[in-house]
Amino acid sequence: MQAQAAQYVGNKSFEVVEGRCEAPAAGEVRLKVGYVGICGTDMHIYHGVMDQRVQPPQVVGHEMSGVVDAVGEGVEGYSAGDRVVVRPLDFCGDCPACNEGHSHVCHNLKFMGIDSVGAFQSFWNVKARTLHKLPENVSLKQGALIEPLAVACHDISRARLKAGEKAVILGGGPIGQLVAQVALGIGAEVMVSEPSPERRAFAEQTGALAVNPLEQDLTAAVEDWTQGKGADVVFEVSGVQPAIDAMTEIAAVRGRICMVAIHSQKPQLDLFKFFWRELELVGARVYEAQDFEQAIDMVAKGKIDLVPFISKVAQLNDIGSAFASMDGNPSGMKALVACGAED
Amino acid sequence: MQAQAAQYVGNKSFEVVEGRCEAPAAGEVRLKVGYVGICGTDMHIYHGVMDQRVQPPQVVGHEMSGVVDAVGEGVEGYSAGDRVVVRPLDFCGDCPACNEGHSHVCHNLKFMGIDSVGAFQSFWNVKARTLHKLPENVSLKQGALIEPLAVACHDISRARLKAGEKAVILGGGPIGQLVAQVALGIGAEVMVSEPSPERRAFAEQTGALAVNPLEQDLTAAVEDWTQGKGADVVFEVSGVQPAIDAMTEIAAVRGRICMVAIHSQKPQLDLFKFFWRELELVGARVYEAQDFEQAIDMVAKGKIDLVPFISKVAQLNDIGSAFASMDGNPSGMKALVACGAED
Ligand SMILES: [Zn+2]
Ligand SMILES: [Zn+2]
Ligand SMILES: [Zn+2]
Ligand SMILES: [Zn+2]
Repeated sequence: MQAQAAQYVGNKSFEVVEGRCEAPAAGEVRLKVGYVGICGTDMHIYHGVMDQRVQPPQVVGHEMSGVVDAVGEGVEGYSAGDRVVVRPLDFCGDCPACNEGHSHVCHNLKFMGIDSVGAFQSFWNVKARTLHKLPENVSLKQGALIEPLAVACHDISRARLKAGEKAVILGGGPIGQLVAQVALGIGAEVMVSEPSPERRAFAEQTGALAVNPLEQDLTAAVEDWTQGKGADVVFEVSGVQPAIDAMTEIAAVRGRICMVAIHSQKPQLDLFKFFWRELELVGARVYEAQDFEQAIDMVAKGKIDLVPFISKVAQLNDIGSAFASMDGNPSGMKALVACGAED
Repeated sequence: MQAQAAQYVGNKSFEVVEGRCEAPAAGEVRLKVGYVGICGTDMHIYHGVMDQRVQPPQVVGHEMSGVVDAVGEGVEGYSAGDRVVVRPLDFCGDCPACNEGHSHVCHNLKFMGIDSVGAFQSFWNVKARTLHKLPENVSLKQGALIEPLAVACHDISRARLKAGEKAVILGGGPIGQLVAQVALGIGAEVMVSEPSPERRAFAEQTGALAVNPLEQDLTAAVEDWTQGKGADVVFEVSGVQPAIDAMTEIAAVRGRICMVAIHSQKPQLDLFKFFWRELELVGARVYEAQDFEQAIDMVAKGKIDLVPFISKVAQLNDIGSAFASMDGNPSGMKALVACGAED
């Protein structure tokens, strides 16, 4: 096979060109890319709204698995043949956030595959410090979902959700459903609020309760479910004002609300409820190393089944069909692009 | 002295009538009231905006000190002559919040002195479970400020402020200044943002930095002060939209924002910043028993000087002058009403 690379060239289009296969620099490894998932951010790129940031033509993609192909100078702990995933964060190491151990929210964070070249290609050279090893029983296809699953693990950790607690997830897209899976996996109970019947069905088939907030009274449903207490934790994964209104209504006294969605507008928030019920709002962004470790561990131990999430697999030279399958399709949870390496 | 009681009768008016002196019921004590402070809520009552809730004529007042005068059946640990303060919360003991140990945010909470008879009188009968003892070196005048100081201790505790951290307080009224004193008392550094020159002077005279947000660039001032990191903790004590805008601008990565002010409107909030910098918003309401204990302890140990806060002392039959002294007067920090008991 010749090395290939899929360049996003603007306006929902990709061009598959000859790829690079370069020797890894010091501290880096060259990966033979396995599978690369398409996430919401990639869909935003596809729709052209991030053209300023990605500067097409650009190879994007950051949810990936692969196999170590070559190892650069000074790299320890990795050798050719290791099956790995990449934590695609490039931090500066010397800002107030990095200095306090929060490099995942580095003031100068570069997101690999958005701010720099990504994984939709045959080979990808990355810093060894971004790698996590996959155990034998986690396939490369599953591996491509470790990154979004790590997002979900980070959300759960930021919200301090515990076994036995009740969590409501506002929004049943891929991230909302992965949050549901992690919540169930650690022994919490889960209700997903989601207008799409396909996504409600997905939630129910994978162990959660599901409510249609456009037809049911969500507040009453949560009251009932929690015997008047309210939800211990609410995850806002929808990005819409009605969810912002709902989240303060359904949270218990001292309930934690985890802000997962990106609100580019400034929505109106019921701050009185924060005072009155001593609510807590915690922002969660990407993940830390331990979130990747937890995600891999939960899949390896069979606590989470990622297979139902894979709605399509396309070859790299047919990458456009994978993006098209996710476009405006509520039952498309995760499309993967096969870039060459196989288990 | 004959027993007196000051009844709020509506429209900024009080009527001083003959007071009651009744035997305490089982589980209760009769207090001879020492000093009673006037807080923001009392000013709201004074202005008539809470007439529905307090139903005049009504004896209000809840920031108080006093001396145990008689003890009801079954009361243990208290006897006549004990100098005490009251934690004016009447909780149900059997709601989801009470069951989880958060009785201060009981679903059915009654606030004594607002939802039931208060302390602007010679004698006040209260449940013994509401009492905290004052050590000898805390005067009854200082004791009247323990309740608002406990509010400040609760805010600090909810925000998990630690020694060495930097806190910005948005709003330099009585509660904001007490939060500043507790923050300084535990070894944090404090900047108060406040438009009133009198209140900025108060903050500076009592150990804090002060900024006028209408004339200075608060965000730049905090950047400077924290070498680009941002504030570890922000206390929103102002209740205005510009402070809501500022609080997300000045908080550090993983900064905690404590919502002390009561926002009856729903302000617009920059939720993107919560995601981007992993901010945290925590609501704080009233206090728990340990906040009263901490407040008393800090005063007893000389870590906080409450004397500068006392801007006026009036006799009970002149209660109107105490309220008038707080009305629209930014240098009026705390007016006390002397109800009879003295050290
Ligand atoms: Zn992604
Ligand atoms: Zn950094
Ligand atoms: Zn008060
Ligand atoms: Zn209760």
